[in-house]
Parts: sequence; structure tokens; C-alpha cells
Amino acid sequence: MSNRKNRAWRLAARPAGAIKKSDFRLAEEPVLSPKPGEALVRTIYLSLDPTNRIWMSDVDQYMPPVGIGDVMRGGTIGVVEESNDPNLKPGEIVQGMWGWQDYACVPAAALRARIPAGDPTPLTAYMSVLGGTGLTAYFGLLELGQPKEGETVVVSAAAGAVGSIVGQIAKLKGCRVVGIAGTDEKCRWLTAELGFDAAINYRRENVLEALRKHCPKGIDVDFENVGGDILDAVLTLVNNYARVVLCGLISTYNENTEVPGPAKFANILMKRVKLQGFIVTDFLKRFPEGRAQLAEWVKAGKLKYQVDVVPGLENAPKAVGKLFTGENKGKLMVQVSEEPKR
Amino acid sequence: MSNRKNRAWRLAARPAGAIKKSDFRLAEEPVLSPKPGEALVRTIYLSLDPTNRIWMSDVDQYMPPVGIGDVMRGGTIGVVEESNDPNLKPGEIVQGMWGWQDYACVPAAALRARIPAGDPTPLTAYMSVLGGTGLTAYFGLLELGQPKEGETVVVSAAAGAVGSIVGQIAKLKGCRVVGIAGTDEKCRWLTAELGFDAAINYRRENVLEALRKHCPKGIDVDFENVGGDILDAVLTLVNNYARVVLCGLISTYNENTEVPGPAKFANILMKRVKLQGFIVTDFLKRFPEGRAQLAEWVKAGKLKYQVDVVPGLENAPKAVGKLFTGENKGKLMVQVSEEPKR
Repeated sequence: MSNRKNRAWRLAARPAGAIKKSDFRLAEEPVLSPKPGEALVRTIYLSLDPTNRIWMSDVDQYMPPVGIGDVMRGGTIGVVEESNDPNLKPGEIVQGMWGWQDYACVPAAALRARIPAGDPTPLTAYMSVLGGTGLTAYFGLLELGQPKEGETVVVSAAAGAVGSIVGQIAKLKGCRVVGIAGTDEKCRWLTAELGFDAAINYRRENVLEALRKHCPKGIDVDFENVGGDILDAVLTLVNNYARVVLCGLISTYNENTEVPGPAKFANILMKRVKLQGFIVTDFLKRFPEGRAQLAEWVKAGKLKYQVDVVPGLENAPKAVGKLFTGENKGKLMVQVSEEPKR
Repeated sequence: MSNRKNRAWRLAARPAGAIKKSDFRLAEEPVLSPKPGEALVRTIYLSLDPTNRIWMSDVDQYMPPVGIGDVMRGGTIGVVEESNDPNLKPGEIVQGMWGWQDYACVPAAALRARIPAGDPTPLTAYMSVLGGTGLTAYFGLLELGQPKEGETVVVSAAAGAVGSIVGQIAKLKGCRVVGIAGTDEKCRWLTAELGFDAAINYRRENVLEALRKHCPKGIDVDFENVGGDILDAVLTLVNNYARVVLCGLISTYNENTEVPGPAKFANILMKRVKLQGFIVTDFLKRFPEGRAQLAEWVKAGKLKYQVDVVPGLENAPKAVGKLFTGENKGKLMVQVSEEPKR
């Protein structure tokens, strides 16, 4: 056991509505030594994602909720400091899910996706376009959305880490792409830099009317991150056999009561829409394939990504709230410690 | 032009809530003569289906609504009385969609599915288990529901023309089948005669608790004909990767305002449910295949069906209401005229 201290954000209470700092407790704990088969990792980047809000609650969900008193769950990139496993060496950079803390002892088997020494790719890319959010965009759009050349694809939360990649992949597939975001600046970014055909500022525009204008041939694919009124507007304009990739319902995560499904639910029947829930971990076995294709597009300059790096583990509870107020652009993460030389 | 009169139910008003007789007008009109390429058919059976209620309204739907003043649309079986087309002979029995009237002149091309002379199958079978409702059950369950041996299948409106066939096909595929219906007598019929594993009387039982009891391994496939509270209960208990075949929303058809989607909508995301709207005509090209399989099962005694035949075209507006109050069991139809000798 070292003398170093580990700071760990532990869940103190299930948030009622928006996340508050008091929903967490910053514990200072000794850094433990790795048991056989484990490695001690130092956190470099901590991923902040809308789904974190689900894990904090105890609604029905796709993984067990984080227990009260437990370290908050989160995707992480870090460096091995000590290893008690023959397959991991100190200095190796690894990805995992050891959560909101400076250090953790993690079973080597849970440290997937080691990042090769000498790889010039920025670590922040592994936490964004080549990480969970890029893979979410890739598999969600291509496998569930099945976009065909000439079709119209709508993306909500389009300036987010997932949406911004979804829209660009849909463009690569020859689709008309319309994004929905929360500021004029984000909308300009989507159209001027990422190649979206149109972008709608949902805070300023009537989304239904704007979609009607920008989707003159109706909507064939909806990559849904938001839900609520935005999903209603989309369902009003779907074509026959449209696909709705239900990837997130950000607009409802802070609600304490159940939020009813879309008012235009009957259109799913009338238009024979396929609406499907999507969680990227279902495609775990195909991550290497997805990451390889995404990396190729990034290298060729066909796929742009943006990261929003907040310094300091102490800022995690405040920073995660940005995902629900629309303050971030691109992939939100916390830099917990310095990157090592690679 | 013959001297005979044709009685035709024409839509007089879009129903507000439940269907009333005054929403229709019984016109007495001359029977016309077929133009070149047409045949004059006499209606024997008229199909009454929940979807008729959609056609009477002007909500967004999968076909144009019936126009005010037009003959009410409906599936029909009839006999050719005169033909002005070389491919159709008087005496042939044909299926079509010439609606709520005694006679019609119909383009020969629209008289699909001629029933072969000498075929011993009852004509009522062609209007039920071998017709639109049987094919709805067949393609909806097998193509969209994808039931696998050992899975649990829930069917709402289970004693109806579609639901009763869905449940029996699911049993043939080795599934556990739980039906939801509106009377104890219907529930007994489902379990004692059709082989359902369990049946729930939604008027008398708490559907959620009853489903919890009868689906100890959760729900893998929901063949949804009803919507509303019943769909909510199902979505509470769905397993990961469950399929919801959205075939009807009977509980909402009489509402004048939009009915919000299910309260448990978020579970579609959490459990990665595939919810898909289904209209049987999308499988038109495969009808012969479906009809052949259904006929084989009927012949082998593996598939039972029940028909509810109301005599007299004059009773159509009153009879169609039975579909929304749960008074019918099996396939509802009107006998408009006598069957010919075959």
C-alpha cells in the first residue's frame, strides 16, 4: 500500500432532477496495491456521458445502477503504474471503466483496448471518435439505422459527441443530413465544418416547421438522442419504413416521474416505423472493426471530432451537468492527470 | 344497367368517439353494368376489422381515409355475376375490397385471390384464417416477432381474429403463450381449446401482476393489438432484445385527441426493444406462401379458427362497433347474400 491518496467521487444520493454536487461525496482514500491478476492504474481521462445520469438513478436500466456509497461509474483511460499480472506492464496505456477516481486496482481482464506504444493518435481520440461515442454513432447508425444513399437522416443532440459523428457518417453514405442543436454557433459548426445539409436551433426555431422545410422528402432515419418534443416532431414527418435509432432520451433523464412516450406514437404503426433501443456494448465483439473504420476516416480527413476537456477530477460533478444544459460541444471529458510521454 | 337496386353504406360523417349508425347513410342506387375490363360482383361476405375505424377518421394513416360520401371501404368475398373481362367468368368466386355494398363493378385486376371451383374450404375461412387476419398473424408474428423456441409470447386482443391465430402459431413454434382478453369465457376458450398456456381477463385482473405471474421468464415477443395500459404492462416486463409487433392500437382508435405513447417508453431503450409497426399489405407478394402454410395447419387440425357472422348488410354499422367493446370472438364479418353452390 502506497502513501499516496486516491480521491474518489462516491455517489451520496440519487439526484432529484438536475445533478447537484451534493449528490456526490469526495472521499480521500489510500491507494491500494494490486492483488494477483490486477493492475494499479492512474486515471488520465474520465469520460462524461448522458448515460451517467441513468446510472445515478434507480430506474429500470441496462446495467445495475451505481450503488449509494459506490465510486461513480465512468469510462476511463489511464496508465498502468504497478502490475500484478504477467500480461500488463507498467507504462502501458489502457482503457476501462474504473470510474470517477485518481487511481484504481483493476483486474487485467477488464482493461480492454490497450493503446499501442508509439501510436501517434491523441488519447482524447480514443475517448471520443474512436471510443464509446464514436462506436455508438457507427454501429447505431449503420446497423440499426441502415441509411441508404439519397435518404434523409435527422440527428438530435447533433453537436454532441455521438450526434456529430452520426451526421458525418451519414454524409459519407450519401444521405441528406439535418441536425438539431441548441445554439446558433453549434448549428454553424455542423453545416460549415462538418458538412451537415442543414441544422436547426431548437431553442429558437419551431422544430416541426424547420424539419418540414429541411426534409422536403420526409425523414427516413432518425438518430434519436433526445426524445420528448423533438421525437414527436420527427414522428410527424417520418416516411414509410423509417428507422428510429433510440440511442438516448436526454430530455427526460432529469425527470423524477415517468415521461410518456411520444404523442405521435400511432405513426409508428401507420408508417411501419422500426424503432429500436440501442446500447453500444451490445456490439462489443465488433468494436475493433468499427474502430478501424473510424480511424481510417479520421486519418483521411473525412471525419472531424471535437473534444471538450475539463481539467481536474474535482470538477466532475459540475461538468457532467453540461450535458443536460447543452453547454458542451463534442465529447465531454475530465483530465484527471497528465498524459505520460508516449 | 339492371333494374336491381344496390344498397351501399356511404360514410356520412367522421365518427366522434364510438361509431354511430348516423355516421353512415344507406344509399339505394341502381346496379351498374361492368365496363370493359370490369366485372359485376355480388357481395357474399363483408369483413369487419378494427382498422376500419382508422379509415373512417382523417388521422395520419397508411391508406387514404374514406372520403365523406364514399362507399365505406371493406374486405369482401363475392361471386361474379357479369363479366366484361376475358379473364373472369360469371360464377367465379373472388376476393377484393369493394366495400359495404350489395354489388360493385370492379376492375378484374383488383379481384385477386380467386377461389378455385370445387375447393371444399369454407368461404368464411378465406375471410379469416386464410384471409387478411390470418396472414396478419402469420407474417406479423413470424417475420417481425421472430419467436424462438422456449421464448414467451404475449398477445393482446387474443380472442380476436388476429390474436387467436398468433397465439396458436406461437405454440406451434414452441413458445410459452399468454393471451389477454376481455371475458372469462374467452380466456377459457384460449387455454382449453386453442392451447394457450395462460390467459388474462383484463377487465377483472391487474394485467401487470397477472403478466408477472404468467411470464416468470419475462416477455420476449409482444404481439400488440391494443396499446394503452396493456402495452405499458408489457413494456414493464420485457426482456432484453424483445420484439414488439405493433399491429394495432384498438384502445385508442375511438379517441378524438392524440393518445401519448406508453409510459414505459424508456424501457424500449434500456432493454433494446425492437418495436415495429406492421401492416399486412406490405407482405402482399408473399400471401400465397402464407396462405398455403396456414391452410396446411388448418387441414392438419393444428390451427383452429372461429368466425362471428352477422347476417344482413343493414347491420354493418352496428356490428363493427362490437370490435371496440369486445363483444365478438374470432373473425367478425357480415353475410350480405347467400353463398352460391360450389
